[in-house]
Amino acid sequence: MALMKDEVDIVIPTIRTLDFLESWRPFFQPYHLIIVQDGDPSKTIKVPEGFDYDLYNRDDINRILGPKASCISYKESACRCFGFLISKKKYIYTIDDDCFVAKDPSGKEIDAVEQHIQNLITPSTPFFFNTLYDPYREGADFVRGYPFSMRSGVPTAVSHGLWLNIPDYDAPTQLVKPRERSTRYVDAVITIPKGTLYPMCGMNLAFDRELIGAAMYFGLLGDGQPFKRYDDMLAGWLSKVVCDHLGLGVKTGLPYIWHSKASDPFVNLKKEFNGLFWQEELIPFFQSVVLPKECTTAQQCYLELAKLVKENLASIDPYFIRLADAMVTWIEAWDEFNPPKPAA
Amino acid sequence: MALMKDEVDIVIPTIRTLDFLESWRPFFQPYHLIIVQDGDPSKTIKVPEGFDYDLYNRDDINRILGPKASCISYKESACRCFGFLISKKKYIYTIDDDCFVAKDPSGKEIDAVEQHIQNLITPSTPFFFNTLYDPYREGADFVRGYPFSMRSGVPTAVSHGLWLNIPDYDAPTQLVKPRERSTRYVDAVITIPKGTLYPMCGMNLAFDRELIGAAMYFGLLGDGQPFKRYDDMLAGWLSKVVCDHLGLGVKTGLPYIWHSKASDPFVNLKKEFNGLFWQEELIPFFQSVVLPKECTTAQQCYLELAKLVKENLASIDPYFIRLADAMVTWIEAWDEFNPPKPAA
Repeated sequence: MALMKDEVDIVIPTIRTLDFLESWRPFFQPYHLIIVQDGDPSKTIKVPEGFDYDLYNRDDINRILGPKASCISYKESACRCFGFLISKKKYIYTIDDDCFVAKDPSGKEIDAVEQHIQNLITPSTPFFFNTLYDPYREGADFVRGYPFSMRSGVPTAVSHGLWLNIPDYDAPTQLVKPRERSTRYVDAVITIPKGTLYPMCGMNLAFDRELIGAAMYFGLLGDGQPFKRYDDMLAGWLSKVVCDHLGLGVKTGLPYIWHSKASDPFVNLKKEFNGLFWQEELIPFFQSVVLPKECTTAQQCYLELAKLVKENLASIDPYFIRLADAMVTWIEAWDEFNPPKPAA
Repeated sequence: MALMKDEVDIVIPTIRTLDFLESWRPFFQPYHLIIVQDGDPSKTIKVPEGFDYDLYNRDDINRILGPKASCISYKESACRCFGFLISKKKYIYTIDDDCFVAKDPSGKEIDAVEQHIQNLITPSTPFFFNTLYDPYREGADFVRGYPFSMRSGVPTAVSHGLWLNIPDYDAPTQLVKPRERSTRYVDAVITIPKGTLYPMCGMNLAFDRELIGAAMYFGLLGDGQPFKRYDDMLAGWLSKVVCDHLGLGVKTGLPYIWHSKASDPFVNLKKEFNGLFWQEELIPFFQSVVLPKECTTAQQCYLELAKLVKENLASIDPYFIRLADAMVTWIEAWDEFNPPKPAA
């Protein structure tokens, strides 16, 4: 895994002092951090000493992207995708600043980055379900009846990690179950099958930038927009559609992090309000999307999705026209900062 | 759960003395057992005292089913489906006679029947993946972004349990990894998403007879047939296709049993030989099958599948014509022994 240190950026969206990094010191210090400061750029974010990092506030984003900065959300953790855009690394690990190191059942601290990289460098199996979970894990394999032609799997694009302590619930569930805590450690990594969408949480997420970065846009949400707290969900639906089309894998499960702090359910309800209705239409829509064969890169797929969003979702709310335009701007910015590599 | 005792039959295919039942005494004694004796009917199977059971050997099967007995396999654990056919209960739990009670990580013996029933009486979520696994479990729920309209789920038809100790590997994997043991206890129950097939193992399996029994045919395999050791796989592919079409759920994961004995990999290789080739064509075929809307019962779906098998798979081997005919015979027998309930 040592070789990987130069191939990973850790992206952290934040509005506050990054004390949580102390918990991660042994695990994050070998990596470069991209800190994306949300909200008022005149505030100072304190980063504990000893970390290798770049910090970008809104002024930096505006300066670096110019007019294309319009596609980066403000006052929403969606701003993290600016970090995805300007990174030059193969892998991204993104984590929220209220997430601490979790322990496995033996009491050992979990190196979340290492497990995510392990998930990403081993294949996925989206075409047939393996009942013993990740077949590439030490001590596991494909079970009887798993077709041999499918056992080499496909490249893994996304690794979705889970959370102990505070579960990632919506506001209504938070209100109903204020005391519920996640204590169950499920020792598994699962490929989410082709054709199946899932609620991707941005709290503890890694992906292969080269394979799927262009489709990891967290949308135009937050300040001034009617759609909030669905940035990661939107990115999850669309990146999964693109992965399915391109034959790439998405895994969920290990590693766990320790989620320390439930956000305010009343604030969340206000933010989520439109999304709670819209998701009922958006999810069936993205479940039914079929991309044309001609789309062979994440960028092409994403532009096609922008077109479909504009054509089909404007009837839900005119906001989706703005979202579709921002999706196109995002790809323009992506192409500018990530030009095709020259042939070797 | 007490009310369930009268609604469950435990079906055990066997060729030997059922000493393994001693391990299960506290858990199986409250239920009725249907023991299906495979092989030579003149042999005597000894059942430990104190169990409530009926035992059927090949002579019994021939007597009870008459000419339709031709659809019940001989010298293959597929014979277990005779028990499914003649049961009058709502739920079936079927288990192999080399499977013992497993322990959870706390050292507690696992009541496999109870967990299976729990899986079957709670809904499944095949349309969208819940990243915190079974949302109906105590202490869990649907995560943020899970559409509310999908949270009531669908009725669960199948509960596929797993195995500790000897994993369920095919002969090539057994040969390559003779010492591999499954020791990892994954504390989860997962709905296998709609449209995804899986390798269903018959070792530790439960289902709702009323919902899916007619499609739980383990095929015409074993003695005299070129297809062996794929009885459960065949039943798994077809029952999943039927569940997906009818909007029923399939779960996998808990409960674990302790699988004591690896079967001989050389014998298995001989038995599996054709299947290792055929599965490469059969699985993509069943993945692509679309059943007509007019099929609204498991029986109708299954007869349609018999037709499709005959039309499409005979080119692989003429055996599939015999299989298709046996599938039709199975449904005829099913209808005879399971006439529609009179309206209440």
